[in-house]
Amino acid sequence: MRWARIDLNGAPSYAVVEGETVIPVRGSPFDSWERTSQRLELNDVKLLVPVVPPTFYAAGMNYAEHVKEVAEKVGMTPKLPTQADIGYRANNALIAQGETIVIPADATEQVQYEGELVVVIGRRCKHLTRENALSAVFGYTIGNDVSERTWQKSDRTMWRSKNTDTFKPMGPWIETDLKLDDLITTIRLNGEKVFAFPTNHMIFGVVDYLVKMTTCLTLYPGDVVWMGTEGATLNMKHGDRIEVEISGIGTLSNPVVREGM
Amino acid sequence: MRWARIDLNGAPSYAVVEGETVIPVRGSPFDSWERTSQRLELNDVKLLVPVVPPTFYAAGMNYAEHVKEVAEKVGMTPKLPTQADIGYRANNALIAQGETIVIPADATEQVQYEGELVVVIGRRCKHLTRENALSAVFGYTIGNDVSERTWQKSDRTMWRSKNTDTFKPMGPWIETDLKLDDLITTIRLNGEKVFAFPTNHMIFGVVDYLVKMTTCLTLYPGDVVWMGTEGATLNMKHGDRIEVEISGIGTLSNPVVREGM
Repeated sequence: MRWARIDLNGAPSYAVVEGETVIPVRGSPFDSWERTSQRLELNDVKLLVPVVPPTFYAAGMNYAEHVKEVAEKVGMTPKLPTQADIGYRANNALIAQGETIVIPADATEQVQYEGELVVVIGRRCKHLTRENALSAVFGYTIGNDVSERTWQKSDRTMWRSKNTDTFKPMGPWIETDLKLDDLITTIRLNGEKVFAFPTNHMIFGVVDYLVKMTTCLTLYPGDVVWMGTEGATLNMKHGDRIEVEISGIGTLSNPVVREGM
Repeated sequence: MRWARIDLNGAPSYAVVEGETVIPVRGSPFDSWERTSQRLELNDVKLLVPVVPPTFYAAGMNYAEHVKEVAEKVGMTPKLPTQADIGYRANNALIAQGETIVIPADATEQVQYEGELVVVIGRRCKHLTRENALSAVFGYTIGNDVSERTWQKSDRTMWRSKNTDTFKPMGPWIETDLKLDDLITTIRLNGEKVFAFPTNHMIFGVVDYLVKMTTCLTLYPGDVVWMGTEGATLNMKHGDRIEVEISGIGTLSNPVVREGM
């Protein structure tokens, strides 16, 4: 099942996506809901960020090749994480499918994409086990963890390197039926494939993270966990279009502009 | 003016606090509101976390003596921050005035308080200037940034050292009329004063942070910015009560238990 959040006459509404048809619902997939009688065309609909998370989690360094690439870029020795310590991103930076990534005027040219699988939590949970962890997952969407590498290196936190407004595209929708082992993440810059990787080849998988996190943290419906990206990443510049496709989910596509251009 | 959030017949409601009288309102102080005709006794009211922030910011290292103390504890060379790089905490960890800080069974004895001024944002804003930054502040409350020091040292992120469920007491209410330079933060453990410091003696002040943050980030009504703590901090153990008082705001008081005791 495919869940979108759409602009319905100026207000946000959840909706079921079936092929090219969008069916608004009353209520929320995280609570109770029922289909309305409306039928919209996907092409005519303004998609919103598929969920505004109560807490926005991100794994960060979670694919071996990427850890080495980033370490080189920020001038550190590469060090594979030895435990599934989750990190955080911020809601101010979220934008939806099709919305514009705006590079601040004072950013360097080192503004790069990171294509990521996003886990969406479906129920309040704590102390998950390896056996029941996936039962807490509502579905999956796609995230682009846009990063300004010089700020990532110079700053004490990732406040502007990762959380500048518009730096967290997420969407286009949430897919509830997926086999993680089958998925491929493909990244295209201006229509050209620049990288692809098996989505589930993570250092710590979804179950590892959810079990570890819920030893100390309660997860809530709508919380998201971004699972990290693989490989090297390239600069994006004014006028570019960046696409992250995950097979079985769809494609998250966003144009890029630089402020003041 | 003093704004609380209370449990009103099982649902959260904002309320004005006048002395020992609590007056529930319809609506929200961050939007439009009006007083109801109800009058409650402060002692009879269950206070909730005064605001659930869209984004939960925290300055971290922002008082000179504390930077030295923490560096020693985690085995690093003390290094004063050179720019106002904001960090993050997580909503799962929030508890209200009077609620219980629960130390996980596997935590060490190094679980410590940090008494902090909390800035509550009143309006959507970006690109604040030194002249208008304080106009974006709705008011101030108190936070206790409870921290497990061994996890803070061992983990790649602060997910469990700082964001374990119940590790972020905030309250008791929001005070809108304050002169920051007049404030004193006093910390009491089991009724005994263990530390006090001038609240506004920060490395980077409220204006510094808000101006810097809003170069890249949009702030939203209800966002909170925890401003850090000063000095050394002590362990809290099962059966303790920790209080953080800021003159002009009030006292945030929470009992401490250890899981399984």
